[in-house]
Amino acid sequence: MLSRLQEVGHEDGKPVDDRLGLHFDLTVPLSRYVVENSGHLTFPFKRWQIQKVWRGERPQEGRFREFVQADIDVIGNGELPDHYEVEVPLVMVSALEEMRAYGLPKATVHANNRKLSEGFYRGLGLSDIEGVLREIDKLDKIGADEVAELLVKDCGASPAQAKACLELAELTADSGSELKAGFDQLCASHGIDQDSDAYQLAIEGLNTLAMIVDEADKIRPGAVIADLKIARGLDYYTGSVYETFLDGAQSLGSICSGGRYDNLASQGSKTYPGVGLSIGLSRLLSYLLNQVGAQASRVSPASVLVAVWNEDERTTSNHLADALRKRGIAADVAPTAAKIGKQIKYADHLGIPYVWFPAQADASSEADQSNQVKNIVTGEQEAADPVSWTPDSLYAQQQVESKA
Amino acid sequence: MLSRLQEVGHEDGKPVDDRLGLHFDLTVPLSRYVVENSGHLTFPFKRWQIQKVWRGERPQEGRFREFVQADIDVIGNGELPDHYEVEVPLVMVSALEEMRAYGLPKATVHANNRKLSEGFYRGLGLSDIEGVLREIDKLDKIGADEVAELLVKDCGASPAQAKACLELAELTADSGSELKAGFDQLCASHGIDQDSDAYQLAIEGLNTLAMIVDEADKIRPGAVIADLKIARGLDYYTGSVYETFLDGAQSLGSICSGGRYDNLASQGSKTYPGVGLSIGLSRLLSYLLNQVGAQASRVSPASVLVAVWNEDERTTSNHLADALRKRGIAADVAPTAAKIGKQIKYADHLGIPYVWFPAQADASSEADQSNQVKNIVTGEQEAADPVSWTPDSLYAQQQVESKA
Repeated sequence: MLSRLQEVGHEDGKPVDDRLGLHFDLTVPLSRYVVENSGHLTFPFKRWQIQKVWRGERPQEGRFREFVQADIDVIGNGELPDHYEVEVPLVMVSALEEMRAYGLPKATVHANNRKLSEGFYRGLGLSDIEGVLREIDKLDKIGADEVAELLVKDCGASPAQAKACLELAELTADSGSELKAGFDQLCASHGIDQDSDAYQLAIEGLNTLAMIVDEADKIRPGAVIADLKIARGLDYYTGSVYETFLDGAQSLGSICSGGRYDNLASQGSKTYPGVGLSIGLSRLLSYLLNQVGAQASRVSPASVLVAVWNEDERTTSNHLADALRKRGIAADVAPTAAKIGKQIKYADHLGIPYVWFPAQADASSEADQSNQVKNIVTGEQEAADPVSWTPDSLYAQQQVESKA
Repeated sequence: MLSRLQEVGHEDGKPVDDRLGLHFDLTVPLSRYVVENSGHLTFPFKRWQIQKVWRGERPQEGRFREFVQADIDVIGNGELPDHYEVEVPLVMVSALEEMRAYGLPKATVHANNRKLSEGFYRGLGLSDIEGVLREIDKLDKIGADEVAELLVKDCGASPAQAKACLELAELTADSGSELKAGFDQLCASHGIDQDSDAYQLAIEGLNTLAMIVDEADKIRPGAVIADLKIARGLDYYTGSVYETFLDGAQSLGSICSGGRYDNLASQGSKTYPGVGLSIGLSRLLSYLLNQVGAQASRVSPASVLVAVWNEDERTTSNHLADALRKRGIAADVAPTAAKIGKQIKYADHLGIPYVWFPAQADASSEADQSNQVKNIVTGEQEAADPVSWTPDSLYAQQQVESKA
């Protein structure tokens, strides 16, 4: 199909390189949308978007070529209050909390601030800030020793500076005061001057991060911690950055990441600063299905299979199923007018708990002259009316269950 | 991104032509899925799928490059009862009926059967059946005269044979008996022998089509008619074919198409015949938005905006919003602690009907010491408790409205 798409371009005798593309994230297209529609939007503009994106890099386990992201962002016009840097990660945490019913472990957002990191690195005398952030981002993958080597080799750091960068990355805190104390101790031990511009930049970032941790704690205690190793690979983040880890699933990596980007969308002198996070939905579901063992409680969503006495009476069964569906009861109709035992077996294969036997006007027994419904799990059978019968709540809905 | 994807292939020094592709429909991938998982499935296997697909051909108005399809299919193992050829289009009709609340016109499924067409064409003495179907498929686009010319020029038809093909395409019927009468009259007038294999093939298709129209009429009168010009472009259909048109929107073309395919999925001597239809969701939504004028009743889904007296008390407002959300009431919180008039204006811009004023413990008036909620549409204001207050149903939910 890629080649088919390209042939279209060649029809005009023009080269098609880079003419067509696939989204690699949902944030860049959002920025374009905001700039193009800024006149029609009310700011701060809030949006959610759940959509497929594609990975340019080689796919790996849990890192699919084609995957689904679930994004939320808030975009301001010219300015954006920093309380959204608390609100947006908390929305994600509450969404992830809802999934704990399906066996997902507790999620914790780990936050950092690029200004804090940059100020500290500059205070140490380093200048290749993006380079240092890129190496620090590899900590979980390659470990501290290799990162230190790379900092020296590729980012112009001395071994002592590299060690200081790693010490910063080790700092975590679950309150603003703890963060401030830890950071000031680090600055003192590495001789960073509190009057320097570098320190002032770091403190600007630290204050935002301290506010985030303390405010989040008021709403959802323990949901957000400061973790100064969080760097993020994308260079459009300008302040807060977030990654989210599941208890006991560190190797899965971050399942919900993002940050604040002040310069991604702009038009002339206008800027549209934003903050957003994105859940890697495919990776999360893959974990839920393969590691947690989440599964549907039954194959079919139907709670009733309406039997068919013979093909000439299928319409009767269809009408019964329709009447049940109109009342919100998921119903299927037997595929063939096979022997009743075979129809019950079909329901059993699909996990459908009830089989409905349509009334037979000319039946010999009085019971068979009325509609009957059989719970094939318990074996109970009773007369039933399609306008009032309701499945037992235990058997009403298809559920998600976890093996754990 | 396409080129990025291709570079990955080049890393190994191998050509990447046709190595990566995008779905052009959801039926071919379904067939592959069924063959690969046949051992784990209970047949007949029913599935729905709503997903993006891509068009290889040049995009046109309403025919997007990237669009969303909504498919349902039923697949049998070796055999598939023909009552599914009634059930599947009726599921789609009931889905489309639900959209009439948003201004969508009534939908009618137009059904044909390829065996009927093929039998008739062969009875006339034609042999390029696929060619004839391909030209007949163009009827709505280029008209009868041009189709007749193409049948003569490209399909080896005499002018009389071409005329007969067009006469068949004009036949419509809303009952099996009407269909049978019309078809037999056509066969008689073109001298097609009722003892011929060709006629027998046509009658096989006609009987299925007559059954579909008559059975559908019992469940949902008028939802399915026989329309013998329906041909479908895809060559994997072997029996029933369907297109769906909206009243007064013929130029939109078919918004829901499909058919029966007996040979698409097979493995050795095993076959998995199926029947399915697909709604072109993007085209349908584009029509709803642009022609019908469907729109959201308000910009924001929130029904309440919780005001913020000052930034230090934002947590109070957040807690109030949380309490309302937990009760299923969509709530937003004011972006800044601006003057109350400005906060009300923000709600008004987003169409949020209520503004909530948090209780102020130290207020001078007794009223301000309690929570208050104001309906900014009617101007009414009253004391309210977040654990019991409910918005008036008129203002509770964001709705879809149609301008028409």
